[in-house]
Amino acid sequence: MKVSVKVPATSANIGPGFDCLGLALPIYNEITVEETVLPGSGVEIDVIDDNTAYDVISVPKDENNIAYKAIELLYNFLGQTVSDIKITIKTNIPVARGLGSSASVIVGGLVAANELLGRPSDNALLLSIASEVEGHPDNVAPALFGGFCISSVEDDGSVSYSHIDWPVDWKLTVIIPDYELDTRISRSVLPESVSISDAAYNVRKCAMLIDSVYKSDAELMKKCLKDKLHQPYRENLISGFKETRELLADKDDILGCVISGAGPTILVISKNDGFENVKDDVKKVFEGLNVNCDIRTFNIENEGTKVI
Amino acid sequence: MKVSVKVPATSANIGPGFDCLGLALPIYNEITVEETVLPGSGVEIDVIDDNTAYDVISVPKDENNIAYKAIELLYNFLGQTVSDIKITIKTNIPVARGLGSSASVIVGGLVAANELLGRPSDNALLLSIASEVEGHPDNVAPALFGGFCISSVEDDGSVSYSHIDWPVDWKLTVIIPDYELDTRISRSVLPESVSISDAAYNVRKCAMLIDSVYKSDAELMKKCLKDKLHQPYRENLISGFKETRELLADKDDILGCVISGAGPTILVISKNDGFENVKDDVKKVFEGLNVNCDIRTFNIENEGTKVI
Repeated sequence: MKVSVKVPATSANIGPGFDCLGLALPIYNEITVEETVLPGSGVEIDVIDDNTAYDVISVPKDENNIAYKAIELLYNFLGQTVSDIKITIKTNIPVARGLGSSASVIVGGLVAANELLGRPSDNALLLSIASEVEGHPDNVAPALFGGFCISSVEDDGSVSYSHIDWPVDWKLTVIIPDYELDTRISRSVLPESVSISDAAYNVRKCAMLIDSVYKSDAELMKKCLKDKLHQPYRENLISGFKETRELLADKDDILGCVISGAGPTILVISKNDGFENVKDDVKKVFEGLNVNCDIRTFNIENEGTKVI
Repeated sequence: MKVSVKVPATSANIGPGFDCLGLALPIYNEITVEETVLPGSGVEIDVIDDNTAYDVISVPKDENNIAYKAIELLYNFLGQTVSDIKITIKTNIPVARGLGSSASVIVGGLVAANELLGRPSDNALLLSIASEVEGHPDNVAPALFGGFCISSVEDDGSVSYSHIDWPVDWKLTVIIPDYELDTRISRSVLPESVSISDAAYNVRKCAMLIDSVYKSDAELMKKCLKDKLHQPYRENLISGFKETRELLADKDDILGCVISGAGPTILVISKNDGFENVKDDVKKVFEGLNVNCDIRTFNIENEGTKVI
């Protein structure tokens, strides 16, 4: 018995939505969970790099693997014990780039294991377990459900999430550099406290961002893709971010430029040919910095994790 | 020549929306601006208390009056000088209660003066001047435009605002105590900095609040009417707030209970007979604290400032 699922990449934060906004992108990891034939064979984990352009992270192949940890939590919650399983992770989402590769592996493991067990767990429980393993829900929610999501850990530890339709003509470009940035490093530069005016700044920008998505109001969105909670502290870790933001500041049909998750990928939101018109200039910025990068423009991925 | 306008009361913050959310309530001040007959008579300001239940604040009757200051800024912007005018303020909105009485006087003076001048200024300029005089736009936006608003001062000093339809069946109850709380005192207890996790908490609650208003989702709204940026610091200044919040915590059709603006008024959002069913219990809370209060339930005021 064996189940394979396909999980999208995700971009979290989206400017002011620190630790709560995220959206899914059409790059996928495939996770297969199977009961192994020989009892007592324990846990087996395989990682297959489906994309030779990137190094696969040194993924733990034992009980420390995050997909395994998530599956174990699910089994425990259901009063069962994981015994002999094989997890195969076919990676296509670049790792340590701020594109939710760990969220995809966690979510993929959970959904596949849940299918294998006959679907005893609902989405709310899967989201809650995935969020616990990942540490925050902003990537796991869109990885699981697709589209554009707000997610929140409540005071009682439960996870809430909302899905909002993304405007069909708002395109997403990811500028993925060829170096990794460990989320732990990217988190370590954040301050423990911020001024109340910076906090209020993000509150109003994020509130208006939600409104601009509902209204498909590109002019309003341009004013909202700003942040004072994480980007000012992280931007020096991310080659080309400030230069790209400056280059794109007043360009037609460019809605904004933000750090994807904890970086180093940069997310640009645009309309029509907004990004195509500036792509060569953006390339030159990175060439000038001697940073190789892969630049890809997509529509949002509205489907979340799917059994394949 | 004389113009009178009617300006609604407003309730700002609405839980997580510190300094950016606000809504209009059907309690009104009337502001009249007229050219005085005798040239050289200067500025004359009259305040008429239309509601004997409340003390009228000791309103400055000279150039320090906020309505006058706003009008002067408008004239200056238009390249004119204010000479001989009379401003009459008929107050019905309780003062220093967190119900936007100062915003209403500023907005009323501006709109009336603009009418008197033949409407040379558009709403964007009126909003910007009103926000400058008030110090923040969260009350002046709904006072000017009505309904539920998000407002934001941009990096260049301009003011943005968005209007979102409020669910027709969400009622607003204000519990107005018979004591005043100076906004300066209520601002002075706020910290200069907050933890990044408290900042992120408000960002996600406020984002979801906007979503819940769009979706008319009362269950989601219940999770959103929470705050870590201002209420924890102000709640000890506001008699009965903690007790009322606790009393209403799990009551049917009560969506939440927040401090209105900087207090001391408490705003309760409810559906159906949600508030009616608990009104007597709320009254008992305040009786037990020996605080007299006026409790009034309304629908939102969707109209803003109107010439009458």
